[in-house]
Amino acid sequence: MALGKDYVNQACAMARALELVGERWTLLIVRDAFYGVRRYSDFLAHLHMPRAVLAERLHLLTEGGVLVKQPAENSSREEYVLTPRGEALWPVLAALSAWATQELLEGEASWFYRHAECGTLLPDRLTCTTCKVRIHPREVLMEPGPGADLTRTDPVSVACRSPRRLLQPIR
Amino acid sequence: MALGKDYVNQACAMARALELVGERWTLLIVRDAFYGVRRYSDFLAHLHMPRAVLAERLHLLTEGGVLVKQPAENSSREEYVLTPRGEALWPVLAALSAWATQELLEGEASWFYRHAECGTLLPDRLTCTTCKVRIHPREVLMEPGPGADLTRTDPVSVACRSPRRLLQPIR
Repeated sequence: MALGKDYVNQACAMARALELVGERWTLLIVRDAFYGVRRYSDFLAHLHMPRAVLAERLHLLTEGGVLVKQPAENSSREEYVLTPRGEALWPVLAALSAWATQELLEGEASWFYRHAECGTLLPDRLTCTTCKVRIHPREVLMEPGPGADLTRTDPVSVACRSPRRLLQPIR
Repeated sequence: MALGKDYVNQACAMARALELVGERWTLLIVRDAFYGVRRYSDFLAHLHMPRAVLAERLHLLTEGGVLVKQPAENSSREEYVLTPRGEALWPVLAALSAWATQELLEGEASWFYRHAECGTLLPDRLTCTTCKVRIHPREVLMEPGPGADLTRTDPVSVACRSPRRLLQPIR
């Protein structure tokens, strides 16, 4: 069923957020951007989503100030990079992923998240219990957990087989 | 464009979460459940969404163990109530709503959230900086902020004009 893009009469912040990031696939695109994906072709190969939908979602996220489209370094390509507004979505993704790991995967994590500086596991992806600080995603190291699928051969999946910092560009 | 319900090849927790709560409207239904909405007719009047979509989403959330359908007290009606798995979604909603208030509404909150016990405002909706404790949503008091729409006359909007605890049943 076709639904309008906005939530009429839902003046609250949640509804505004969902107008921007509540479309199908949108938060997976944002997740991939945290993994360091910047190229259209890499989003496409990793997400296996229809091209038209990917293009539309990237446009929506750029219009909404979550991503910025910019020339890639040393290349004529363009790439999509999280803005500060986009990086501020980390607590949302962190909460969703922590909830799903606990509730839907029975704790069998696809990824482990650690504080890059000290190696402490970050169950909430946000705070280091050793250093007693809030962690920017740039300081978060992700590594495959028992639930990770290590058989995929696209560039994003290959890059994510080894421990890597969030937001570090892939390629 | 029609998309499958599942995210093929996206084994991660985020994708699993979004299969369950990433459909359009679903998180607004969950938000309403935190506001204390339990009746089908109240969800319908407050969310202004198509009946068929509401019924389908309530079914999905019940199947997924986020809501449970149970007989209402002192009534032959049935109602939808958050399970512990559903209540565990509070950090997700809190993060989305905090992000949108900051980034999209320029800080003009629709609602303020306070620790019911001490009255301290909870910018992250999760932790009381005065009591230094993590707050269960049951201990959170919501009240209209400068961005609230106070003109609506459905039972949910009317109940939410006065300060009330999250999860306290409406009617």
